Amino acid sequence: MEGLYALDLFGTAVFAVAGALAAGRKQMDLFGVTVLSVVTALGGGTLRDLILNVPVGWTQDVTYIYVACVASIATFYSARVRRIPTQVLLYSDALGLAVFTILGAHKALALGFSPTIAIIMGVMTGVFGGMIRDVLAGEMPLILRKEIYASASLAGALLYVLTEVYFGMQWWNIVATLLIILIVRVASIRYQLELPVFRDSH
Amino acid sequence: MEGLYALDLFGTAVFAVAGALAAGRKQMDLFGVTVLSVVTALGGGTLRDLILNVPVGWTQDVTYIYVACVASIATFYSARVRRIPTQVLLYSDALGLAVFTILGAHKALALGFSPTIAIIMGVMTGVFGGMIRDVLAGEMPLILRKEIYASASLAGALLYVLTEVYFGMQWWNIVATLLIILIVRVASIRYQLELPVFRDSH
Amino acid sequence: MEGLYALDLFGTAVFAVAGALAAGRKQMDLFGVTVLSVVTALGGGTLRDLILNVPVGWTQDVTYIYVACVASIATFYSARVRRIPTQVLLYSDALGLAVFTILGAHKALALGFSPTIAIIMGVMTGVFGGMIRDVLAGEMPLILRKEIYASASLAGALLYVLTEVYFGMQWWNIVATLLIILIVRVASIRYQLELPVFRDSH
Repeated sequence: MEGLYALDLFGTAVFAVAGALAAGRKQMDLFGVTVLSVVTALGGGTLRDLILNVPVGWTQDVTYIYVACVASIATFYSARVRRIPTQVLLYSDALGLAVFTILGAHKALALGFSPTIAIIMGVMTGVFGGMIRDVLAGEMPLILRKEIYASASLAGALLYVLTEVYFGMQWWNIVATLLIILIVRVASIRYQLELPVFRDSH
Repeated sequence: MEGLYALDLFGTAVFAVAGALAAGRKQMDLFGVTVLSVVTALGGGTLRDLILNVPVGWTQDVTYIYVACVASIATFYSARVRRIPTQVLLYSDALGLAVFTILGAHKALALGFSPTIAIIMGVMTGVFGGMIRDVLAGEMPLILRKEIYASASLAGALLYVLTEVYFGMQWWNIVATLLIILIVRVASIRYQLELPVFRDSH
Repeated sequence: MEGLYALDLFGTAVFAVAGALAAGRKQMDLFGVTVLSVVTALGGGTLRDLILNVPVGWTQDVTYIYVACVASIATFYSARVRRIPTQVLLYSDALGLAVFTILGAHKALALGFSPTIAIIMGVMTGVFGGMIRDVLAGEMPLILRKEIYASASLAGALLYVLTEVYFGMQWWNIVATLLIILIVRVASIRYQLELPVFRDSH
């Protein structure tokens, strides 16, 4: 399905932008920025393919690599021309999270794995790239901080897997999942929503 | 062998408890705690299966995931009701280390790999989950600090592989290995044993 | 090809030395030093083989593990006898980077992957071991700091892949690539060369 391929490349590009902006905060050079971007953009899909025991996507089709590099370098130079608002990092990261959650879940279902595995592969594909990005940049991963992050991906993966199992992959369940993840992420940032925190009684 | 399967689920559960308690120290929310737990519990086996080139265990049997999630959430809410002593973290981690060392070594031998590889896969399966847990939580991995940690796993793996090669998998070499690893870990914590430290002469 | 195998073992040994010296700075004990060394020495090749979907090298031939352990333990005890100059860490790391870049690129080409993939696998094999070493030791990876690191590997990978595609693997393109990577690394350290840094205009 061509729309799916376009969506995958789109997710790769927005995650590369998010990776480049995160790297920029650390005053890295062009190459460091590109490496962190590409790892962010391709990391989730790489782990997914390794675990699902299929060939890693970008080793079969180098377009992914070119898209990630171009998006990263374009971000690097754009930031020199005019200031990029902080929101761009948050929105591009949220968009990448949403797209990769859907694609991860879909790929697992298409390969015949159970819905539970599909939900987990959706969340893993969505969050893993950003997780290594944060670890490499020396920060505690977003996913483990108080903000709602992986929960947004989980909500989307649940919705998507349940609807794909019954109705197949349709434009409406893709759009609905994208919206759910984006809305939960944006709302959690704007209103600083939190889940209950670990509390040791004493 | 059913006892083996039960042992594997038991190891998964105790490592999930250790992961949840480690996460709790960082004031994470319910979802962050669950993610860190599941990564701790399934990380070692995932890397082992990827490297041994066999399907990743939990993608074939979702019971592992349910056990890890239930153990993690139960720990999260127990900690709200009554204070969990620090020893519980150390003992559950030591128990998980022991169980996964045995299972990692056994799986490699069963797949026909050499005893040296089996020893390494034992140690890797035992320590890797905790290692990513520490990296994600922004701490230096336990394994690299001065305490005897991976050495306990190595001692157990040596004993287990040597005895399995000559006598097969028996209840007595499983029990002996579990005891060795637990005793070394607990003794090293209690008496603060240390191996010789890197020292640059000058 | 026997020379290739010798080169691979040599790369493993020098990376293990670099890993042991890096670990030594953190006051780790003998076992921690060995673990960090072996991870540095075998990490890049492990990720490469997982992504290229071939059996992981050291699971098929334990010589790699012995070489890494011996080099690591020898470094540990040498440092006790006489002071090891800082340059040894930088040079052994540069040498390992050069050797693994060539071997990673060559393996991808030999398996029939495209030149673009071969360049990426070269860089990834070269830099990944050191990257996990730094993450585990709680430092920001060398590759992401301002110094030219992955760029040296990339320059070498480009040269090597282009020449192997046209002329095959020859002694002269191996030597030329080794020299390019070593010279760029050493020059960048000596003259503190830098690539352009991410700069947010405002």
